[in-house]
Amino acid sequence: MTYGMVVGVVGGGQLGRMLAQEAIPLGIEVRFLVSSPDDPAAQVGGGHTVGSADSLDDLERFADGVDVLTFEHEVVDFEVLDRLAAAGHLLRPHATSFATVSHKARMRAALADAGIPTPPWRLTSEPEEAAQLVADEGPSVLKLVHGGYDGRGTFFVEEPSQALQIMNSSAGIEVLVEPQLDLVAELAVIVVRDPSGRRVTYDPVSTIQVDGQCRRIDAPTSQTRHISDSARLLAEQASEAVDSHGVLAVELFLTDAGLVVNELAARPHNTGHHTLDAAVTSQFANHLRAISDLPLGDPSLRSQAVTANVIGVDDSTDPRERLAAGLGVDPAAHVHLYGKAPRHDRKLGHVTVCDDDPERARHRVARVVETLGGQEVPQ
Amino acid sequence: MTYGMVVGVVGGGQLGRMLAQEAIPLGIEVRFLVSSPDDPAAQVGGGHTVGSADSLDDLERFADGVDVLTFEHEVVDFEVLDRLAAAGHLLRPHATSFATVSHKARMRAALADAGIPTPPWRLTSEPEEAAQLVADEGPSVLKLVHGGYDGRGTFFVEEPSQALQIMNSSAGIEVLVEPQLDLVAELAVIVVRDPSGRRVTYDPVSTIQVDGQCRRIDAPTSQTRHISDSARLLAEQASEAVDSHGVLAVELFLTDAGLVVNELAARPHNTGHHTLDAAVTSQFANHLRAISDLPLGDPSLRSQAVTANVIGVDDSTDPRERLAAGLGVDPAAHVHLYGKAPRHDRKLGHVTVCDDDPERARHRVARVVETLGGQEVPQ
Repeated sequence: MTYGMVVGVVGGGQLGRMLAQEAIPLGIEVRFLVSSPDDPAAQVGGGHTVGSADSLDDLERFADGVDVLTFEHEVVDFEVLDRLAAAGHLLRPHATSFATVSHKARMRAALADAGIPTPPWRLTSEPEEAAQLVADEGPSVLKLVHGGYDGRGTFFVEEPSQALQIMNSSAGIEVLVEPQLDLVAELAVIVVRDPSGRRVTYDPVSTIQVDGQCRRIDAPTSQTRHISDSARLLAEQASEAVDSHGVLAVELFLTDAGLVVNELAARPHNTGHHTLDAAVTSQFANHLRAISDLPLGDPSLRSQAVTANVIGVDDSTDPRERLAAGLGVDPAAHVHLYGKAPRHDRKLGHVTVCDDDPERARHRVARVVETLGGQEVPQ
Repeated sequence: MTYGMVVGVVGGGQLGRMLAQEAIPLGIEVRFLVSSPDDPAAQVGGGHTVGSADSLDDLERFADGVDVLTFEHEVVDFEVLDRLAAAGHLLRPHATSFATVSHKARMRAALADAGIPTPPWRLTSEPEEAAQLVADEGPSVLKLVHGGYDGRGTFFVEEPSQALQIMNSSAGIEVLVEPQLDLVAELAVIVVRDPSGRRVTYDPVSTIQVDGQCRRIDAPTSQTRHISDSARLLAEQASEAVDSHGVLAVELFLTDAGLVVNELAARPHNTGHHTLDAAVTSQFANHLRAISDLPLGDPSLRSQAVTANVIGVDDSTDPRERLAAGLGVDPAAHVHLYGKAPRHDRKLGHVTVCDDDPERARHRVARVVETLGGQEVPQ
């Protein structure tokens, strides 16, 4: 007995798990296509199907039981999505938008077409060309056009020989080559847009990244009002440019020359995790509302907040075993564990502290994260 | 692969459903003993067992898979609980405390022993005695000592003949007989106490009841600081008196003669639903933390709030079909639906609005509840 849409989520990680949590008050049924019944979302959700997000058979089997398909990672085959859509399945975001956003070259081209500034970039699949670009431009970043996440698939290179080595490491690699920019700061903006184009935008945040992995979110950003408003505008323009449905996460670089849009993700995103505890409506609830034809909720922040990820230090330091200690050091902290086995550099959870004193919030968050056994939180 | 305790909840209603929601960030696994796989908690939770909360066999089968048993309703057989405890199962609240709290005569006696004021009451199972008490004392309330909820099992009588009729309506009825008091207001307090006696107490709220059913919660209470502090103190004394583990909900009457404790419930409670959206830590999260040996969370209110129940008007007006309309009238309202089929006077959901202007909050909540098709919210 179901009311409203049954939402099928491709993927079963922590983003799916938090979608499951936020679906409960709305009475929305969420199912997951997971790689294992131990996946974070499968541990807590109602129904799940074990299968591959690259397999048309598995996706069709999964899609047959749901009203709308959505995604919590990008590691899918875009052609398979086109075939799902052609077979009449409802995808939100739609296949074209998802494939544009999830492929760095198409994404950057779509932004450029809309007049949205991005870092300078060149697309290549030729090892020699990549090496030559590095020789010409100096220290560079190579980014796989598809399938990278959390710093994986992103390579900082100083010498042409490093570019050659990366390009030759496996067949058919396609990369963006871009200069290593001097960053003043990194910002991120969550925009939620429904299929009829109605939209809400969360306050821009500052993100503190280490090796391409988000470590800390300061909400709202401490940058000037002008910069924050510009980031918001660019994010909203980006959501129009790619015709996003549901959450579009927009990551921006602030350089001396101004703001550029670096990355997009067409799904709930790490840079919006603070919204679970610090916003009136979370990014997860609003993603579900957007793709289920429900009116969007108020994205306002209820207070300033700092969120930090709990990142694994090794495979034996387990925040689940340290939960009592972590909760004990700050009764007002919001601790979220993802049900994942610990591993070096793996995201195992996050902690949010709502506190209108940002410096105190950063210290409080760090104390909880470090008591839980997570990597040090940059201050 | 489980870390921390596996919590087994006896019951699968909306309280269980909200426990499931709040268990997710803590990584606590929650299972339910439900009467049907369509029960609100079974729709969203991980595991559930279909069985009867009165059956030792069913309870033992359920208890074998969990580390700690807890309750989301009182319709259980106390002797069965004693046998479960004797067989080595961990019950929180423990069997003695639960049986005391859930039996109105024992509860009132325990409060009296602790010097906590209650309404005057007499216990009887004799129809003639009940009738005589009404003849002597005038308009009275008869309350079944066990198994009543939401106004069911509570009877307002004006004449001795009505008392006779109720007592003769089924065999072996045992009731409290008490005078109909003139109430200035009704208050409620959620106290959460862990097995080692550590305790947090939520701010006392005002509750607005219609026919014994909670319709609206104003958090915090608008009564004076003195009354609020007295309510808090009585609630904390009550939690000590019954040695509660987890949530103890304490309902109080304010009369011209002062505060008296009317009811207790040894489980998460309707009068604490605002804590999901308006408190730093919800009553559900703190119940799980208390019974799982985790430190308790901050119970502070983040803002003033009004919560109203979505009460069914008939069996065809379904808030689930009106969700889009309900969300549309107030983007900042927190709507919670329980996944229940509509029925007259049935609790189908609740709505919370956080707003520091109580009058505006009441109006906003009423608008959402009534758009969802719930009964009118008293203003």
